[in-house]
Amino acid sequence: MRIEYGSKIIKTLRVKILDKPGYLGRLALTVGELGGMFGEIKTVHIGKDYKVRDLDVYFSTKEDVDRICEAISSLDGIELVEIRDIVQEVHQNGKIEVVPRVQIDSVDDLRLVYTPGVASICKLIQESPELARKYTTIPNNVAIVTNGTAILGLGDIGPVAGMPVMEGKALLFKMLSGINGYPILIDSKDPKVIIDTVKAIAPTFGAIKLEDIKAPECFEIEEILDNELDIPVTHDDQHGTAVVVLAALLNIAKYTFINLRDSTVGIIGLGAAGSGIQKLLTAYGIKKIYGTDLNPQMKELFAARGGIPTDLKGIMDNAKIVIATTGCPKLITPDMVKKGQIILALSNPDPEIDPEDAIKAGALYAADGKAINNALAFPGLFKGALMANAKTINSRMKIAAAQAIANHTIHGDLVPNILNIKVHEEVAKAVEEEAYKSGVAKV
Amino acid sequence: MRIEYGSKIIKTLRVKILDKPGYLGRLALTVGELGGMFGEIKTVHIGKDYKVRDLDVYFSTKEDVDRICEAISSLDGIELVEIRDIVQEVHQNGKIEVVPRVQIDSVDDLRLVYTPGVASICKLIQESPELARKYTTIPNNVAIVTNGTAILGLGDIGPVAGMPVMEGKALLFKMLSGINGYPILIDSKDPKVIIDTVKAIAPTFGAIKLEDIKAPECFEIEEILDNELDIPVTHDDQHGTAVVVLAALLNIAKYTFINLRDSTVGIIGLGAAGSGIQKLLTAYGIKKIYGTDLNPQMKELFAARGGIPTDLKGIMDNAKIVIATTGCPKLITPDMVKKGQIILALSNPDPEIDPEDAIKAGALYAADGKAINNALAFPGLFKGALMANAKTINSRMKIAAAQAIANHTIHGDLVPNILNIKVHEEVAKAVEEEAYKSGVAKV
Repeated sequence: MRIEYGSKIIKTLRVKILDKPGYLGRLALTVGELGGMFGEIKTVHIGKDYKVRDLDVYFSTKEDVDRICEAISSLDGIELVEIRDIVQEVHQNGKIEVVPRVQIDSVDDLRLVYTPGVASICKLIQESPELARKYTTIPNNVAIVTNGTAILGLGDIGPVAGMPVMEGKALLFKMLSGINGYPILIDSKDPKVIIDTVKAIAPTFGAIKLEDIKAPECFEIEEILDNELDIPVTHDDQHGTAVVVLAALLNIAKYTFINLRDSTVGIIGLGAAGSGIQKLLTAYGIKKIYGTDLNPQMKELFAARGGIPTDLKGIMDNAKIVIATTGCPKLITPDMVKKGQIILALSNPDPEIDPEDAIKAGALYAADGKAINNALAFPGLFKGALMANAKTINSRMKIAAAQAIANHTIHGDLVPNILNIKVHEEVAKAVEEEAYKSGVAKV
Repeated sequence: MRIEYGSKIIKTLRVKILDKPGYLGRLALTVGELGGMFGEIKTVHIGKDYKVRDLDVYFSTKEDVDRICEAISSLDGIELVEIRDIVQEVHQNGKIEVVPRVQIDSVDDLRLVYTPGVASICKLIQESPELARKYTTIPNNVAIVTNGTAILGLGDIGPVAGMPVMEGKALLFKMLSGINGYPILIDSKDPKVIIDTVKAIAPTFGAIKLEDIKAPECFEIEEILDNELDIPVTHDDQHGTAVVVLAALLNIAKYTFINLRDSTVGIIGLGAAGSGIQKLLTAYGIKKIYGTDLNPQMKELFAARGGIPTDLKGIMDNAKIVIATTGCPKLITPDMVKKGQIILALSNPDPEIDPEDAIKAGALYAADGKAINNALAFPGLFKGALMANAKTINSRMKIAAAQAIANHTIHGDLVPNILNIKVHEEVAKAVEEEAYKSGVAKV
């Protein structure tokens, strides 16, 4: 039920190409005709009459890799020198590290940051605990907590196999908002163990980001922890995704001249993402939200939160805006689409309906999930909460984040470029301000 | 009972000094006469007929700061421009950060380290869990766990006030041995909570370093965790200190031509440090170890481990080598010292007996604790264990570490320079090798 970010195979092909017009073009055409997509293309070496280039190519299956590489090798004037697994290379020894922020050049320097100097700072904090915000990393530390039960679209693969995702989140935290992300892998599926563990280690952090924990356990864990701790505890799969979806909807509403609050919404798939979307759209003021899921328990929870449970047909017949987060490709067939409908088919890599097909079938607007990346939301959302020393991340802060994201979108696009630091800064500012206004900033 | 690394006050004095011979000297003399000690001296600005310098000065008390600054101000040709708290400055916003190890310049790069690329690495680890060693930071991550009950010599100041020490350890880990140290503050004094919490988060780490947890709880916590987890769990206050003490003793034995294994040792103070020293010296082969402590429970534990409980007089009368880790300045008076005794009075900043006084009273060799810093041991000790993928850090590995430290000491010194990276590398190598030899390296 989670939005799945695909399992495409990425390889770097090192090719020696005859340096005459048309040879690169023919190669690119061949790759494209066989279903390969290009990432980065780098020139590695310029020879007398040839160039060596590294081509990052995305393949759908292992068979495609073989097929396409064979086709390249048979091309005239082209030599396939090497096939490298660039993804494995960048993951070698992991993707993050813990480093000093201060330089130590001498034993004298050491005496400032370690004993005896450090004792004076400990005593200051002991006397005035609020000084921990000034003299430690705590207010800028976020735990990225998983038990590995819902890693990407891969499901329950365990916490250790989920570590590369957690390191990726930590990397994005630092790169996009300067936060220290600590991956914390918890070896348990028992909500009580997860709750007790997070509570025990909470003093280390300014906020807790729950990550890739499966539904319905994720709901209970988040609710209890966020209530019992005085720092924000937020399950990113629910709320990060929801914030980006709301941002996209704000843009779509602007482009299509509809009134978002008065629109009827239908959510297909009520797992973490679907539930988070329901909660945030309800908080935003959308009154009529239909929902469906194959799991009756999810539908009950949805109804308890004020949603109207129905089935797939009920949604397609009644909703102006359809949001699908099911993980099932081609679930929505063109004949189900109503004229003037807005359809977000968010499952990755293969959406519930191809946006082009939806438009052909009469949809007013359609998009898939490629751009709906919760990394657009979580760095600024958490940074804003940390800056305000907030005790929770409430709906108003999430809505402020969505509005900031929407406001910084290039006209016509669904959402902004994820690497635009300015966007994350603006999200953080908006969230901080809303934390103060809504009274959750600790004084 | 813990070795205390002092609470000296460090200030940076910015002074404008007339640029003529003798002025700096007179200033230095004045500071020294009033009990101030110098750290670094930097020239900040060279004026027409004066220099501006920043002097790092160590003071014993706040009164000394005022007294010495007043004396400086009254000196002819010297102007005290500013008094800065350099320790507070370097602690601003904390001392460590979590950063990316890979560079992200484009959305294409992002697709390698995050979705969709990361999914292929997760699947690899799911299929072959040992690949977590290759593709994640886990094998190089060490949790630095405290509950704040025995921070330096400050005692039970709570985990948050202990954070600057944990960040200092993390800083040293990266700087001296390339390890990622993650401070983990646990909000509990209950050994069971600490044990359960560490067990739950253990998959994140290649080893656990327990830090500044008070005795006797620290013994039980370490023992249970090290037995039940398949990664090393080591309480640094016990073993880091013990390794450096054994290294110092190996050097002293060489300098004084005594047979260490046949010597009688007496340990005054049986807290974490004293207990760790007992355990390691016993493992090294020293048979007769006397010990005393004000707390009868500590003496019982000491006896249970094979030590001979006695009192202060019993130790001073019977031990060839006396090791004091009490935190009580001047506990050993010169009349207690026996001719030919070796005395390590390790409490900081004020030893149980001044080494000079001990020598005058007939000691063969005497030293205080200034150089006995466990940061000489823990970076290499953990690095070696991580390199070997060891399931524990056993006594043989600790002895190997002590021998490596002793072997890299400049002749005549007690221990090597802590900032000598070569020493830490050699310690790591020796520990790794011994892990293989002693059968605790996981295959």
